[in-house]
Amino acid sequence: MGASTDPRLKEVLASLVKHLHAFAKEIELRQEEWDIAIDFLTETGQICSEERQEFILLSDVLGLSMLTDAINNRRPSGATESTVRGPFHVANAPIREMGDSINLDGKGESCQFEGRVIDIHGDPIAGACVDVWSDDADGFYDVQKPGEIPKWNNRGRFITGPDGQYRYTGIKPVSYPIPDDGPVGQMLGKIGRHPFRPAHMHFMVTAPSHETIVTHTFVAEDPYLLDDAVFGVKETLIAPFEHIGRDTEWRSKFDFVMVPTGREDGK
Amino acid sequence: MGASTDPRLKEVLASLVKHLHAFAKEIELRQEEWDIAIDFLTETGQICSEERQEFILLSDVLGLSMLTDAINNRRPSGATESTVRGPFHVANAPIREMGDSINLDGKGESCQFEGRVIDIHGDPIAGACVDVWSDDADGFYDVQKPGEIPKWNNRGRFITGPDGQYRYTGIKPVSYPIPDDGPVGQMLGKIGRHPFRPAHMHFMVTAPSHETIVTHTFVAEDPYLLDDAVFGVKETLIAPFEHIGRDTEWRSKFDFVMVPTGREDGK
Ligand SMILES: [Fe+2]
Ligand SMILES: [Fe+2]
Repeated sequence: MGASTDPRLKEVLASLVKHLHAFAKEIELRQEEWDIAIDFLTETGQICSEERQEFILLSDVLGLSMLTDAINNRRPSGATESTVRGPFHVANAPIREMGDSINLDGKGESCQFEGRVIDIHGDPIAGACVDVWSDDADGFYDVQKPGEIPKWNNRGRFITGPDGQYRYTGIKPVSYPIPDDGPVGQMLGKIGRHPFRPAHMHFMVTAPSHETIVTHTFVAEDPYLLDDAVFGVKETLIAPFEHIGRDTEWRSKFDFVMVPTGREDGK
Repeated sequence: MGASTDPRLKEVLASLVKHLHAFAKEIELRQEEWDIAIDFLTETGQICSEERQEFILLSDVLGLSMLTDAINNRRPSGATESTVRGPFHVANAPIREMGDSINLDGKGESCQFEGRVIDIHGDPIAGACVDVWSDDADGFYDVQKPGEIPKWNNRGRFITGPDGQYRYTGIKPVSYPIPDDGPVGQMLGKIGRHPFRPAHMHFMVTAPSHETIVTHTFVAEDPYLLDDAVFGVKETLIAPFEHIGRDTEWRSKFDFVMVPTGREDGK
């Protein structure tokens, strides 16, 4: 590599080549396996589109996304833990009034999500943006079926007031398979792994002078909770979902605890 | 992975995950670098087409192709060494009469390629197929400019007779850049590496009961001989190119030494 190469790029590529070669030597990579790998990567790239990101899926099912998350989000105990963003976040969702519903298609079991955005001392954070997204009652995100599902169905952003409270109505999310009709799904099939994720609500919480939290809350009794296809579950992210009123009406309370940016430990 | 997973697939994937995670931990992969990697792999897949294989280029410039070649082609000394196939081989090139020209566009310095296909005892191999391909005088393979360059320009297959001889007229190949207008070329640019390959003629030699040889012959005086962008040069593959007649007429002699399949050492 040239002398003027960015030092970090040099470090990353040197390490990549070292580990890539160590892998090929360890397994004595066969020529026909190299052919399969080239085809697999090519198909993975070619199936990507505005609505689909197969390389994120690949990173997810290989545990790389969760590892990257762990490396980049070392927080003091008591702070909300993070998990994978996943391929379905869409920037600039509509900003809704506190208490509004994001469930535009009216399908699914209604659930009221509420809680507070606070700092590590328990003080409310005003002006925090709580960006939320979940699948619909059939297990699809709006972007997966453009035209069939109302745009921004089960998505929205909510800005906290002085009390740090957020509150909105969505649905109790359902477990869903990650898209498994492409190369990554075929790979999972070959190694006897199912493609399901336990039911979860996605959150991205941002606030001035605080580290962004990208996380989910999980529904406790989900059958895939201990066997998430992308390894995203953390115990502290399992949220209560309790009945209110009728059988199909729920409430889930969860507080987000943010840490200030520029902490002394550098993380 | 499931109990019924193919044992080799299990071994390969377990090793892949181990080394992938070791890489991410060693460099403390940053979230924004993960984003760049996802985008890079996606672009690399999306630029692939019938005429272009960017993942092979990536494997080539990272040295993985040559490593895979070395792992899979351990041959006894005296046998012809192999090198990368590269992305430009096309199966089923026309079978030509011995002595024919493959230089359909008539451009470039004429060169007569000749030699013998023999076994490790020096005996001729009859019925061997010598599949050859090179770039044109401008450094392009026919598939890189479909419609502009005659199809099968500088490609052909020749079948040896009882004397094991092959002979055909092509051009003295020229050094050329690997396609550098895509993600791999951008990466090379960022690390200060040029995209050039030293001039070479590609060969794939097949014969019943013998291991296929995939290799090149290189032109000795090429300025990139010691600095091949894909690390493909081996000393035994540097072939003589000598003048015959006029300045722009050449001859290159090279014998291919094949080893039988099913050798006792398993390779
Ligand atoms: Fe999700
Ligand atoms: Fe070539």
